[in-house]
Amino acid sequence: MDPIDRLSINHYSIRQWSLPELVEGCRKNAIKSIGVWRDKINAVGLPKARELLKESGIAVSSVCRGGFFPYSSDQERINTIADNQRAVDEAAALGSPLLVLVCGGIASAGLERSREMVREGIAGLTPYAQARGVKLGIEPLHPMFTANRSVIATLEQANALADHFPSDTVGVVVDAYHLWWDPNVYREIDRAGSRIFAVHVSDWLVPPPDFLNGRGLMGDGCIEFGKFIAAVNEAGYNAPIEVEIFNEQLWSLPGDEALALIKKRFAQFVH
Amino acid sequence: MDPIDRLSINHYSIRQWSLPELVEGCRKNAIKSIGVWRDKINAVGLPKARELLKESGIAVSSVCRGGFFPYSSDQERINTIADNQRAVDEAAALGSPLLVLVCGGIASAGLERSREMVREGIAGLTPYAQARGVKLGIEPLHPMFTANRSVIATLEQANALADHFPSDTVGVVVDAYHLWWDPNVYREIDRAGSRIFAVHVSDWLVPPPDFLNGRGLMGDGCIEFGKFIAAVNEAGYNAPIEVEIFNEQLWSLPGDEALALIKKRFAQFVH
Repeated sequence: MDPIDRLSINHYSIRQWSLPELVEGCRKNAIKSIGVWRDKINAVGLPKARELLKESGIAVSSVCRGGFFPYSSDQERINTIADNQRAVDEAAALGSPLLVLVCGGIASAGLERSREMVREGIAGLTPYAQARGVKLGIEPLHPMFTANRSVIATLEQANALADHFPSDTVGVVVDAYHLWWDPNVYREIDRAGSRIFAVHVSDWLVPPPDFLNGRGLMGDGCIEFGKFIAAVNEAGYNAPIEVEIFNEQLWSLPGDEALALIKKRFAQFVH
Repeated sequence: MDPIDRLSINHYSIRQWSLPELVEGCRKNAIKSIGVWRDKINAVGLPKARELLKESGIAVSSVCRGGFFPYSSDQERINTIADNQRAVDEAAALGSPLLVLVCGGIASAGLERSREMVREGIAGLTPYAQARGVKLGIEPLHPMFTANRSVIATLEQANALADHFPSDTVGVVVDAYHLWWDPNVYREIDRAGSRIFAVHVSDWLVPPPDFLNGRGLMGDGCIEFGKFIAAVNEAGYNAPIEVEIFNEQLWSLPGDEALALIKKRFAQFVH
């Protein structure tokens, strides 16, 4: 198998492109799958996005994103439930096997209660997703995002959370950028096993020029991708690997140059 | 006991002051202890620093910092050993019970080997420190610093590392800013028990204006200090609590204003 067959381009890696441009760029480059973002879907409308993807033959590896479960008011809770159900509907409509969950930061009730709210939120969403054939992937985010994006910070924590739910519907998203530093990461990748629903890659620059949008191309940072990918493979993961790089410099390039760079680095480092 | 009796001012919280200015400011404010930095000691010279502290009656709670054990050449290894021994000597000369270890980032041999180098480095330094009556405090740093400052990223990891060494000489430094996000932190504070050699506080701003120098005054961020301090107290810690805030705004104030703010927030939040 050509390593590139396993490459999925997450739309936010080439955010300068619209969905039609991304689909066309990937078609020309024989990229077999993409990770889509809801704002980019909504910019063209769900029916058109669906048709575009169907005609192209490109698979959707995941939809980004649901989650943000902790709430500080009842209205917020109600809105979040509705929005997560819409996200599941969109994933189902696009034929995506997976909705990625970025679980949300700390609500006014504090860290511990916010973590409970995440569990309650996933409990509420699971039957809805299961009925529509969409899996939910809990993505632990780097601890620098615990306060404002994800109170789920380690793979150990994501695995423990997933254990409360049916294993065919709720699993984890293993992103090298968020997890590489963790002394327990290889133990937890092994533990996750068939519950690994997606694998994301981008590199950790030393030092990062920006913590949100300063992720690096594979090979420009300190992450040992050979070891990381071997671990997810050994755990049984055999689906696409999504390149998700938030990087201002990459976004400033013409889309086809950004895509060529990603393809080259993926072939060089991610296997 | 007045809560302020437990306050130790880490010099880098008021970096705009020289050591003589810090000592004078603390004396006027009845602050009982300070955490000193080697560059600030060296700026006045060790004998003068020693005399200044002795005359003032202010205790040194810790010396910052030794560590940076991972090396990419034999010369680097030799230099690091010599520098760590000097740091122990300085701590002993100043009557500090503790040298804080910031263990260092990733050397060219990679993350796993760098973590072994930390263990080897501490093993080499321990008898030297023990003979001079100086304790070594392993400080796990937030995972955003794993690549360039500390491959020791969690209290679990620091505790496991400390377990290899005599408990009267090697322990851990528990810094709320670095550890608050960790789902295992309270379990690990309890486990550390009498091996907690120091406690540091500053707040996590949401979102942080800067990841290195954007730490907040207690009360300005999301850390639940009441819970955190109760946990270290219950684990048996009863020594000073060091305020270590790296914050550009605080550094731009006249030193006495910065000290007044720290004192006020400490009394308000840290108990």
